[in-house]
Amino acid sequence: MKPIVVRNIERADADSVGVLGGLGVSTVHEAMGRLGLMKPYMRPVWPGGEAAGPAITVLAQPGDNWMIHVAVEQCRRGDVLVVACSSDSTDGMFGELLATSLRARGVLGLVLDAGCRDVKALKEMAFPVWSRAISAKGTVKSTLGAVNVPVVCAGALVNPGDVIIADDDGVVVVPAKNAADVADQGFKRKTDEDGKRQKLAAGTLGLDMYNMREPLAKAGLVYVDKPQDV
Amino acid sequence: MKPIVVRNIERADADSVGVLGGLGVSTVHEAMGRLGLMKPYMRPVWPGGEAAGPAITVLAQPGDNWMIHVAVEQCRRGDVLVVACSSDSTDGMFGELLATSLRARGVLGLVLDAGCRDVKALKEMAFPVWSRAISAKGTVKSTLGAVNVPVVCAGALVNPGDVIIADDDGVVVVPAKNAADVADQGFKRKTDEDGKRQKLAAGTLGLDMYNMREPLAKAGLVYVDKPQDV
Amino acid sequence: MKPIVVRNIERADADSVGVLGGLGVSTVHEAMGRLGLMKPYMRPVWPGGEAAGPAITVLAQPGDNWMIHVAVEQCRRGDVLVVACSSDSTDGMFGELLATSLRARGVLGLVLDAGCRDVKALKEMAFPVWSRAISAKGTVKSTLGAVNVPVVCAGALVNPGDVIIADDDGVVVVPAKNAADVADQGFKRKTDEDGKRQKLAAGTLGLDMYNMREPLAKAGLVYVDKPQDV
Amino acid sequence: MKPIVVRNIERADADSVGVLGGLGVSTVHEAMGRLGLMKPYMRPVWPGGEAAGPAITVLAQPGDNWMIHVAVEQCRRGDVLVVACSSDSTDGMFGELLATSLRARGVLGLVLDAGCRDVKALKEMAFPVWSRAISAKGTVKSTLGAVNVPVVCAGALVNPGDVIIADDDGVVVVPAKNAADVADQGFKRKTDEDGKRQKLAAGTLGLDMYNMREPLAKAGLVYVDKPQDV
Amino acid sequence: MKPIVVRNIERADADSVGVLGGLGVSTVHEAMGRLGLMKPYMRPVWPGGEAAGPAITVLAQPGDNWMIHVAVEQCRRGDVLVVACSSDSTDGMFGELLATSLRARGVLGLVLDAGCRDVKALKEMAFPVWSRAISAKGTVKSTLGAVNVPVVCAGALVNPGDVIIADDDGVVVVPAKNAADVADQGFKRKTDEDGKRQKLAAGTLGLDMYNMREPLAKAGLVYVDKPQDV
Amino acid sequence: MKPIVVRNIERADADSVGVLGGLGVSTVHEAMGRLGLMKPYMRPVWPGGEAAGPAITVLAQPGDNWMIHVAVEQCRRGDVLVVACSSDSTDGMFGELLATSLRARGVLGLVLDAGCRDVKALKEMAFPVWSRAISAKGTVKSTLGAVNVPVVCAGALVNPGDVIIADDDGVVVVPAKNAADVADQGFKRKTDEDGKRQKLAAGTLGLDMYNMREPLAKAGLVYVDKPQDV
Repeated sequence: MKPIVVRNIERADADSVGVLGGLGVSTVHEAMGRLGLMKPYMRPVWPGGEAAGPAITVLAQPGDNWMIHVAVEQCRRGDVLVVACSSDSTDGMFGELLATSLRARGVLGLVLDAGCRDVKALKEMAFPVWSRAISAKGTVKSTLGAVNVPVVCAGALVNPGDVIIADDDGVVVVPAKNAADVADQGFKRKTDEDGKRQKLAAGTLGLDMYNMREPLAKAGLVYVDKPQDV
Repeated sequence: MKPIVVRNIERADADSVGVLGGLGVSTVHEAMGRLGLMKPYMRPVWPGGEAAGPAITVLAQPGDNWMIHVAVEQCRRGDVLVVACSSDSTDGMFGELLATSLRARGVLGLVLDAGCRDVKALKEMAFPVWSRAISAKGTVKSTLGAVNVPVVCAGALVNPGDVIIADDDGVVVVPAKNAADVADQGFKRKTDEDGKRQKLAAGTLGLDMYNMREPLAKAGLVYVDKPQDV
Repeated sequence: MKPIVVRNIERADADSVGVLGGLGVSTVHEAMGRLGLMKPYMRPVWPGGEAAGPAITVLAQPGDNWMIHVAVEQCRRGDVLVVACSSDSTDGMFGELLATSLRARGVLGLVLDAGCRDVKALKEMAFPVWSRAISAKGTVKSTLGAVNVPVVCAGALVNPGDVIIADDDGVVVVPAKNAADVADQGFKRKTDEDGKRQKLAAGTLGLDMYNMREPLAKAGLVYVDKPQDV
Repeated sequence: MKPIVVRNIERADADSVGVLGGLGVSTVHEAMGRLGLMKPYMRPVWPGGEAAGPAITVLAQPGDNWMIHVAVEQCRRGDVLVVACSSDSTDGMFGELLATSLRARGVLGLVLDAGCRDVKALKEMAFPVWSRAISAKGTVKSTLGAVNVPVVCAGALVNPGDVIIADDDGVVVVPAKNAADVADQGFKRKTDEDGKRQKLAAGTLGLDMYNMREPLAKAGLVYVDKPQDV
Repeated sequence: MKPIVVRNIERADADSVGVLGGLGVSTVHEAMGRLGLMKPYMRPVWPGGEAAGPAITVLAQPGDNWMIHVAVEQCRRGDVLVVACSSDSTDGMFGELLATSLRARGVLGLVLDAGCRDVKALKEMAFPVWSRAISAKGTVKSTLGAVNVPVVCAGALVNPGDVIIADDDGVVVVPAKNAADVADQGFKRKTDEDGKRQKLAAGTLGLDMYNMREPLAKAGLVYVDKPQDV
Repeated sequence: MKPIVVRNIERADADSVGVLGGLGVSTVHEAMGRLGLMKPYMRPVWPGGEAAGPAITVLAQPGDNWMIHVAVEQCRRGDVLVVACSSDSTDGMFGELLATSLRARGVLGLVLDAGCRDVKALKEMAFPVWSRAISAKGTVKSTLGAVNVPVVCAGALVNPGDVIIADDDGVVVVPAKNAADVADQGFKRKTDEDGKRQKLAAGTLGLDMYNMREPLAKAGLVYVDKPQDV
């Protein structure tokens, strides 16, 4: 790995980021064609937080948070920091001090494929973090990594500048070049879902609303009246 | 697997369901002779929810929620939907739209051995879900399963109509035919525990209240004054 | 294993316990030289609880909570009970009744390398528990263990009388003989961090505050302007 | 749980057992309609062993192997012993002595949802065991369970007398009443697969042999010549 | 996800593949600067197998092996097939028949982030497979995926044509464009290691051979004669 | 943590080590009163190896094998090296070169709570390693740890000089001061087991040999003839 920091990255356009953030993780993931989702072990360290913004990426050595300090300087107002490790680790690479520093730069949240600490303080600050674990385990600052290179974080490929959307459902990544399209798709989907929700709330069955009865029968589904009829 | 839907099942009697729901998971599990508990990975997607009712069961292919749509139609007011998968999966098979539909039919909650999404909306709706994971991962609708057949869900056998009790301690299953007996046993146990709680709160030791000193001594327990006396 | 109960243990001094409790897990762990932390699977069963006190230790057979009943008698006001199992188990060894008994003796909290139940009641009582799992699975009372012997709990060695600090970040153990020193170190660290937090909040970069730029350059870190410059 | 031992169970017919054993786990699982498979954490403690026979079932308390001793007496020549635990455990409930006893009664193998020890001796004896873990952790003999009741073992329902088939691919359960049918289905499947294997070995593509090209195109699959054509 | 198959991909040059295969996973991973390694849960289904070749990639739906059938046609002599799933699954997507077909096309091995079956037959055929699990669980053929698109497999990014090296130590990916460089670096490293091995075998200490004594002392390492000297 | 190396440790006496090694892990663990066993995730990287000797202990930072190099110098003929990490890691801290060095000093094996690589070479050298994982992931050499201090390795406390016994059943630790006693107990147990094995092989039931029938009946075990008699 080349120990580099890329200073200038192309960020997804702000309008798309705004729309995607409003749609939320599950809708965006569907609008993406069911791609881009991080693994479900990535959970908010306190419930209810949300974040949406272009990714600043970090590739770190497990148990070593030196590169997060380096990355802070590359962050701008509205960014989301994404930290991947070169192997699995739950060590507590991030806490209140780094959150204070990110907040001062206008960063909206952190996605961290490792452990997070100072959970109570982060909640009081309302700084949202999605992580693999909560752990007070301290880390060293001795080995270089890289900032703003493509990383695989929790199973998803993240390029610097891609849009990160995170909420209680998890974290999804939208490639910068697709942001506008996915925002459009997601918006349509959401409108469509609003209509469906009303019908379902009024008692219409999904079987009818989605016209599933015929394909189910064709596939061979059989209704019987009692268990012994099987 | 035969792709069938059983329309008419025998539900546990409503009185027993009511009593069991009031007792809660831990007491019912004890009253059952410590049987019927689902594995502890089944957790509420939001804390504080509770549900008790007869089970409508679904056996689904992992990553495929077609049969949940089929099952909705078989649910009645007061039921709890139980979804098992034919192999382990964390994909998000259930979200706000299906919850809206279940709510419209009077279903009290969902027990799902897979992933759940739209957690924030479910909490706002106060629709309780116990699941293996929280995941936005979308699912397909292409392979048949079965509705109202016996299933193994999170390690527990569930027959259609069995009573499901779920709260912050997890999920327990009571066979329909045993519901009245278990409700009786649980009620006695609860009354008994109320008395014990008062004694313990007043400072009585469990050692004395449960008459443990003699069996402990018989089993060979030795008290020493200091570590070096060992 | 000798089935013994040690009656008189030397507890860490109360002043140090007080200071350590005020510092919290993450600061104490750092002040210890990054030692003594239990594994991150140890989580509070309800969020926001905190406990600090000398350890009463239990070594139990998995699925058997007999020795917890024995240990209650050895607890004094201000203690924290620590329960290790001789092999991994998630069975629910502890619930409301035992909590009532511990509360009556002035015990401040429980650290349990197994499962815990009656979560709702524990939260209402505000009795804090850190455990490996939440499980209603009942346990037997048939096999002896030991009380107030050294135990390995969630990967950390705990001697009776050691200081246990537990909060939302996890659980850390401070050997009784080091308690005063660690309290001093931790207090200095906390004061120092307060100053750093203010600087970072004001926009100073960690890179500058910690003088990292030179060692980073020495280690070979390279800044480039654009990805294609790599 | 009622602490009972059922003495007389109905075993699946020997002819079907013989055929099913010859087919192996993967073929039988397919012939069952993809049902009946235990979870993949069940692995042979030494590779290459195989077993097929009617199940004698045990429900045991975790960390307690008393009921295995009870079950030995109920086993006959050709049986396979299946041990489930009332909660997850890796403790070493079984080793060389019990294997010697089972071998003396003509038992063909053990399926154990817990830990196994004396692996080297078991391999030398060629006594096959499928288990969740290998562990030397000793167990107690203090709490009753049951023998020859229905159990859920590694996610699969096993009734006494059902056919157990186990090999390097895992463990599958065939209900006694379906044994003859599944044996027939499996035999046909195997014959059919032999023909397919020859065609595939000769270079025929599955795409053609299974006539997949048309349904793939219908489903929307697109072939492009180069990545940039996407 | 666009359901596409890319027909023509650029494969890493055969000479580099040959050298990299001879070096083995651990040496290649070091020569890459400690990048490109798949997660350690990827294990050979039988020990001792080795494979090296350009990747044909598949992105499949969990529990659905339709796209593997599609991918076979795109494979050439010397390729290694790499199958990623859109979410975690252990279902048995691959067995003897598909291996027969791949062997007929000259494919050298399979890397599969899911389950594999027919382990005994694969070993007899000497067809090497690295997978997340061994499982007989059958899969459906109903949902499209993609062939020869970039995939994340077991935490590593794989582009079609990249070099896959797999042996008993795991699986590593070398980007096609870096193959020659990494082969050179690896070759030097190997030669260098041969010399070191001889010195170490002769009793030279790594402390001396790597000149570690001075940096260790500088970092603060202290030697004491007895524990009480600490 | 103080970064120290303790040069002179007291090793368990060689005679006891010899006896304990001959008894094997499961027998020694029982003779210890069922204590001292490492967690079952510690598995041999190749099957069939065995090692017994006094422990040289290492506490290392995860992903950093510097201290293993330091520890080699402290090893003598007949020792077993035990490496614990300050937090969970699967990185490959050990391979062929270090094994060559340990072999040159007469070390009999390695117990490593992290990952191991060069598995094929280690098997060819017949150098036995028990580890948490197999992983080619390379490690750094930048942070100090300690050598010959007490460590918790895979859940077991290991003091320098304690006896390590490792085979296919796992790894057990015998405190140096208890080595002679445990060797005696284990020897008696083994002799006793030899007699039992012969009886069991001849068809005597454990129920009779251990006189279990009466305590089982007392505990409430009931025999019924058919399922419907329950």
